[in-house]
Amino acid sequence: MTARYDFASDNTAPAAPEAMQAVLDANSGFTAGYGADTVTAQAADLIRQLLDADAEVRFVASGTAANAIALAALCKPFESVLAHRHAHAATDETGAPGFFGHGLGMIPLPGADGKIDPAALAAALAQPENGHVQSPGALSLTNATEYGGVYSTQALAGLIGTAKDKGAGVHLDGARIFNAAAAGFDLVAIRPLGVDILVIGGTKAGMPPTEALVIFDRPLAHRFDARLKQSGQFPSKGRFYAAPFIGMLRDGAVLRHAAHANAMAQRLAGQMPFKLNHPVESSGVFVEMDEPTRLHLQAAGWMAQRFLDGSVRFMCSWATTPEAVDELAAALRQVR
Amino acid sequence: MTARYDFASDNTAPAAPEAMQAVLDANSGFTAGYGADTVTAQAADLIRQLLDADAEVRFVASGTAANAIALAALCKPFESVLAHRHAHAATDETGAPGFFGHGLGMIPLPGADGKIDPAALAAALAQPENGHVQSPGALSLTNATEYGGVYSTQALAGLIGTAKDKGAGVHLDGARIFNAAAAGFDLVAIRPLGVDILVIGGTKAGMPPTEALVIFDRPLAHRFDARLKQSGQFPSKGRFYAAPFIGMLRDGAVLRHAAHANAMAQRLAGQMPFKLNHPVESSGVFVEMDEPTRLHLQAAGWMAQRFLDGSVRFMCSWATTPEAVDELAAALRQVR
Amino acid sequence: MTARYDFASDNTAPAAPEAMQAVLDANSGFTAGYGADTVTAQAADLIRQLLDADAEVRFVASGTAANAIALAALCKPFESVLAHRHAHAATDETGAPGFFGHGLGMIPLPGADGKIDPAALAAALAQPENGHVQSPGALSLTNATEYGGVYSTQALAGLIGTAKDKGAGVHLDGARIFNAAAAGFDLVAIRPLGVDILVIGGTKAGMPPTEALVIFDRPLAHRFDARLKQSGQFPSKGRFYAAPFIGMLRDGAVLRHAAHANAMAQRLAGQMPFKLNHPVESSGVFVEMDEPTRLHLQAAGWMAQRFLDGSVRFMCSWATTPEAVDELAAALRQVR
Amino acid sequence: MTARYDFASDNTAPAAPEAMQAVLDANSGFTAGYGADTVTAQAADLIRQLLDADAEVRFVASGTAANAIALAALCKPFESVLAHRHAHAATDETGAPGFFGHGLGMIPLPGADGKIDPAALAAALAQPENGHVQSPGALSLTNATEYGGVYSTQALAGLIGTAKDKGAGVHLDGARIFNAAAAGFDLVAIRPLGVDILVIGGTKAGMPPTEALVIFDRPLAHRFDARLKQSGQFPSKGRFYAAPFIGMLRDGAVLRHAAHANAMAQRLAGQMPFKLNHPVESSGVFVEMDEPTRLHLQAAGWMAQRFLDGSVRFMCSWATTPEAVDELAAALRQVR
Repeated sequence: MTARYDFASDNTAPAAPEAMQAVLDANSGFTAGYGADTVTAQAADLIRQLLDADAEVRFVASGTAANAIALAALCKPFESVLAHRHAHAATDETGAPGFFGHGLGMIPLPGADGKIDPAALAAALAQPENGHVQSPGALSLTNATEYGGVYSTQALAGLIGTAKDKGAGVHLDGARIFNAAAAGFDLVAIRPLGVDILVIGGTKAGMPPTEALVIFDRPLAHRFDARLKQSGQFPSKGRFYAAPFIGMLRDGAVLRHAAHANAMAQRLAGQMPFKLNHPVESSGVFVEMDEPTRLHLQAAGWMAQRFLDGSVRFMCSWATTPEAVDELAAALRQVR
Repeated sequence: MTARYDFASDNTAPAAPEAMQAVLDANSGFTAGYGADTVTAQAADLIRQLLDADAEVRFVASGTAANAIALAALCKPFESVLAHRHAHAATDETGAPGFFGHGLGMIPLPGADGKIDPAALAAALAQPENGHVQSPGALSLTNATEYGGVYSTQALAGLIGTAKDKGAGVHLDGARIFNAAAAGFDLVAIRPLGVDILVIGGTKAGMPPTEALVIFDRPLAHRFDARLKQSGQFPSKGRFYAAPFIGMLRDGAVLRHAAHANAMAQRLAGQMPFKLNHPVESSGVFVEMDEPTRLHLQAAGWMAQRFLDGSVRFMCSWATTPEAVDELAAALRQVR
Repeated sequence: MTARYDFASDNTAPAAPEAMQAVLDANSGFTAGYGADTVTAQAADLIRQLLDADAEVRFVASGTAANAIALAALCKPFESVLAHRHAHAATDETGAPGFFGHGLGMIPLPGADGKIDPAALAAALAQPENGHVQSPGALSLTNATEYGGVYSTQALAGLIGTAKDKGAGVHLDGARIFNAAAAGFDLVAIRPLGVDILVIGGTKAGMPPTEALVIFDRPLAHRFDARLKQSGQFPSKGRFYAAPFIGMLRDGAVLRHAAHANAMAQRLAGQMPFKLNHPVESSGVFVEMDEPTRLHLQAAGWMAQRFLDGSVRFMCSWATTPEAVDELAAALRQVR
Repeated sequence: MTARYDFASDNTAPAAPEAMQAVLDANSGFTAGYGADTVTAQAADLIRQLLDADAEVRFVASGTAANAIALAALCKPFESVLAHRHAHAATDETGAPGFFGHGLGMIPLPGADGKIDPAALAAALAQPENGHVQSPGALSLTNATEYGGVYSTQALAGLIGTAKDKGAGVHLDGARIFNAAAAGFDLVAIRPLGVDILVIGGTKAGMPPTEALVIFDRPLAHRFDARLKQSGQFPSKGRFYAAPFIGMLRDGAVLRHAAHANAMAQRLAGQMPFKLNHPVESSGVFVEMDEPTRLHLQAAGWMAQRFLDGSVRFMCSWATTPEAVDELAAALRQVR
């Protein structure tokens, strides 16, 4: 029985052909290093176009690092980041924000489906300050959320407004921003909403490893190349991280792929014999499943992760086939 | 006039076909993430085979990060790294060792051609310790050096022995280890010499961005995945960083390419109308050239960097063509 | 109405005469700096005698720093400290462990009266390790606890054994270790129990600011002066931090004072018109009190802090007088 | 033969009676913790009065920490501090700025007598920026310098102007600022000169351990208590660090003591049988002396340190007696 990783995560998928072709196209001739090449310039332009916004754009290898660097840019070590208590940066990155941010803290917030509860955010920001605690320096949002939730523009506007009123900076983890977009989230709204730094995930969107750091707030971008270099995220062969974005953005492939992933999640949800723990708003399906059942499923070849809320997660990607969905559904019925 | 980056660095070159083909081959089907895939396992085996040594092997995106992480693993923040005063980690990485190592210090050592002077190393290690200074915790070596020098096994044995006698750990920056190997350096000697952590550069060897972290000292490898994740160097799509090593190692392509780069450097040195500042032992040619002349050369289209010792550097790579060497040589004669 | 700080904390008290006299005695003539003086040597001897143990002893200015430095010595940045969820280091030191420990994490554990629940500790240590989380590197204990609880030797033996079995280091925050000792805790048991680093609080025990760092595990003490100097805790005029310990230890004054503080807490508890939230085992009294009542009390001149568990705390010290206890009790009856 | 530390440093002296009396006076009754007490408020007022400037003032235990915290407040980790190459922060604090500043760099500058050479500063600030180096974020000055030099107001104005023109922040290490003042340096000029953060050394001026952090630039002071607490420099019993300043400032004792120290240095210089390596402008005397001679002197009981420039230093303090100077001079003639 070969283990099947189709639904274990969206980083178990290969890279999409549009992304790979762009890498192959870019891999020709000599070019300037460290992001001074024309491939990088073109990819940055495509991102500014996508967001309809002026911004500094950098391409880096790691989403963990990109998020942590963003938070370190927004927060002092003696401040804290407000984030959903199950946010990736808070729970699944081995303390990277504290490492890149020299001990910055995390204030975990509750909320359904990975979306921060507005009242909880307001309450956290209303805490009186004193020298003994790390007061909030930034708000970190994720869209789509770790549980596949998709924030509406209004919901984000509310959260961001609350944070900005207290002087906090705003980071948006867009590891699955294209899945959110395919579900209706308006990418052009990000800048006007007041996001200071956005991380656009290429990896989970079907590219080889690459993430775009988008810095809307220009003073934050001061000496950002030095910040990246010191942090090990200033690639010499920049074209390899920029090219995939060109391939995936220039004709909208990335959104088509994201829509496909979302549709596969819906297809799976439609056949799901287990209780859904979260509404399926993007590419993930989270279900109630006890551990013996999950192990049976795994013994049948299907890898799936248990999440912090106790759900078992099935993740779809650009590469998920309808056939695989149906096969998984059959297996799920079997182990049920 | 298009700027030509052929000799500006060895990271201005595209990736070699063997590396790219291996990436394409690996980019198929779903696979486990975070280095638990078979591509990564195979690449790690090839590296252990290359070095004829048991070791933990990890593939990461950044050489800067790989070196800094290695030094942070070997040194406490209140200790220092002994390194050549022009070592990349000491001068060209925006203080990355201090960032990853939480303030660890650098003790710059002199030495011709980027090779550490043994007497200077011994003198630094003989300094009496006290609580007011960062005493040496590790020795960082580079082979080939920043000035294209290639250490002999004996020379390294001497330096490493001196360091180990004082309890210091040993890091080898192998950003151009294949150029050193092609010039006669024995890779199989690395482990017996007492190196604790080796970084094998893929990027400068003609791969898309990838570096191998080789940890010979097993206790150092404890919780290394957590160390890497926290540092933003634990790629989810690990196969993209492992595959290039497979393509370049399995039939020895990487050494052929390195030998070609070295040969191109010799070809350039043979026609060089400027004084050589360092013997040409691997892939770089360093010459005496005043700044107006360098700017003339640049105006003629040829990009070249000035180095810390005042030399202007011409760097060859797997992709350097004899024709380009001859064209450059002609341009050099022109501006002389 | 003058605000009265008698019960606001135990650091609102002045220093005890025995401590101050020792400072005055030590403040004579020229002496070696940085802990190389005879006053420091004598104080360190007294501490080793007190603990009946060999150890490296250092005197530093700050308990926050002492604890954070101890945890940084026991844990890597990619590891976590197991501590009670209301431990001072976890909640009241502005993230100092993460700052001194370069992003090390905290795993908060539950338990009554500030004592770690053994089952919760075992469960945390039983978590499977993976590269995405900060696995436990150390256990941090506090005795007496933040809620005035006093661990028995057996209880500590159980917790420490559980931690050591998994390879974790052990830190004991002894900010109020003398109050615990006066309540029956055997200081001589600390070393055999397996504590690696102990911080003995001088400040809360009635000294001017000073804390003793006791490193039982000699390899941990390697280059500890450098560690302290880099951390800003290597005082040049060391005698000012050592002398108070001499004054307070040489004839047992510190234990007499601690016993007095504990007795005052009992006296207060005996007259307390509010519900006690924790047994009064040492010098603090924690009661159920709503916020309007606390504000009335404050308006009547008596400062008292609300704690994380919702209790209002009244803290006794060496300087608390029976009269003050009775006055406070009267005021409490008034606002009730 | 008892070792005599009279001239080994100025931190080998006891605290002056005015400082100690103020501590004893302050050590009475209960008071608010963490700098919220009236003693601290009064000391801060005296410092603002001394400097004739509005500023946030904090009292901390460690000059090393105070300087490092100031530099961390002025510089990002990917930036550097411009400092004299023999500045205490650069050479004698075990890398504390890099620890508190998370890897910030140091750019060492030359200059006679510990004073930064203006041309060297200008040259360092004129370096083109790029992502591979830590560009200057702050200038760190010391007055009096490590070699006893005293900057004139004009000299400081020139250096500070050069730095501010490039956007760098300015830190003044005033470990011996009173010795500079006694030699004619105008303390009231500090604020108008553009210093952002000043550290006033209490310890070397004859107090028990205490330093004042003076933050002229109010935005820098945002959440400074949290910064200090996280850094282990937010003393609970604040009066012990504030009171000495009251005792030494309220009637000008500190300047009288500093003038005495300077006069003792002149008295020693006048009898010095060894070549002076630096002009004696404040309290230190630096001489040419070979190591065997220094060891003879030490054998005769007189401790003296060799400095980075090769000089042997004799340091005077408030407690240095004319008799001790004459005895030392006699001993020096003997070993000559």
